[in-house]
Amino acid sequence: MAEPGGVAGDQLRAFVERIERLEEEKKVIADDIKDVYAEAKGNGFDVKILRKVVSLRKKKPEEREEEDAVLDLYMHALGMIGAAPESNY
Amino acid sequence: MAEPGGVAGDQLRAFVERIERLEEEKKVIADDIKDVYAEAKGNGFDVKILRKVVSLRKKKPEEREEEDAVLDLYMHALGMIGAAPESNY
Amino acid sequence: MAEPGGVAGDQLRAFVERIERLEEEKKVIADDIKDVYAEAKGNGFDVKILRKVVSLRKKKPEEREEEDAVLDLYMHALGMIGAAPESNY
Amino acid sequence: MAEPGGVAGDQLRAFVERIERLEEEKKVIADDIKDVYAEAKGNGFDVKILRKVVSLRKKKPEEREEEDAVLDLYMHALGMIGAAPESNY
Repeated sequence: MAEPGGVAGDQLRAFVERIERLEEEKKVIADDIKDVYAEAKGNGFDVKILRKVVSLRKKKPEEREEEDAVLDLYMHALGMIGAAPESNY
Repeated sequence: MAEPGGVAGDQLRAFVERIERLEEEKKVIADDIKDVYAEAKGNGFDVKILRKVVSLRKKKPEEREEEDAVLDLYMHALGMIGAAPESNY
Repeated sequence: MAEPGGVAGDQLRAFVERIERLEEEKKVIADDIKDVYAEAKGNGFDVKILRKVVSLRKKKPEEREEEDAVLDLYMHALGMIGAAPESNY
Repeated sequence: MAEPGGVAGDQLRAFVERIERLEEEKKVIADDIKDVYAEAKGNGFDVKILRKVVSLRKKKPEEREEEDAVLDLYMHALGMIGAAPESNY
């Protein structure tokens, strides 16, 4: 090819521009997500807990419960929570 | 309100679902970006350098040149590059 | 100063070498942490939950309990957990 | 074992405390690194470029040069830098 340095400039430019357009779209959506959290906060919701809920919803209920049970077990063994955990399950 | 625990469940659900939809859209775009890089790689481009180019294009040329000049200065002072840098500027 | 390009090479080198030594030390400790988790895993502990316990221990008990209470509230409002949460508090 | 819930509490506590000690040490070193950068800044060095130098020193000279050459090639192909790159290599 007649490209300087053997690089297909047009092709490279096309890739870079596609990436830049997609990154711009991704940024817009990331900003939208921030806006929804801000709106939720404005309605009295706790953003940190809301993020945790969104993250927990990605897991299956059984998976969540199993992890919670092990966490409870460890926290009791370390004296981080007082009552016997067995009664909750 | 008649909501259990004082939380407006419908409103909370609406926020969570809006966030989940936006996160899904964001994931699709992130995957698209990965696909473009993979396609560029398939066309012989170096993905690591391509990422760097995309990142550098976000800076103004003057900013880039200034940073490069200082980097050159430091690298020469440390013996990381051999020739005198002055000749390039 | 007689330094090339006006950079105090010896001083720069001293800073870089101090940073590199510290980064090396930090890496050794990071590897030690990984080793302890691996050893815990080898003794039957769940590493993911162990990490969570270590993270939760950085918070005050009141803080943890408050966050848990709000999380429970939200999860109930969303139908993610079944029973009434009020009885636990 | 006689441990509540089948968890060896003493062993768990020992792991957690070892991890916490190591994390504390790691934090001290991370703070030391920040201090060195701050001191370098106080002596007129550009912290951002200094970080880049430290990062570049982890690569072999040949590797750095090769990456720079490809970067130059791409930037020329995209018109991000003006002159012909061939003369520099």
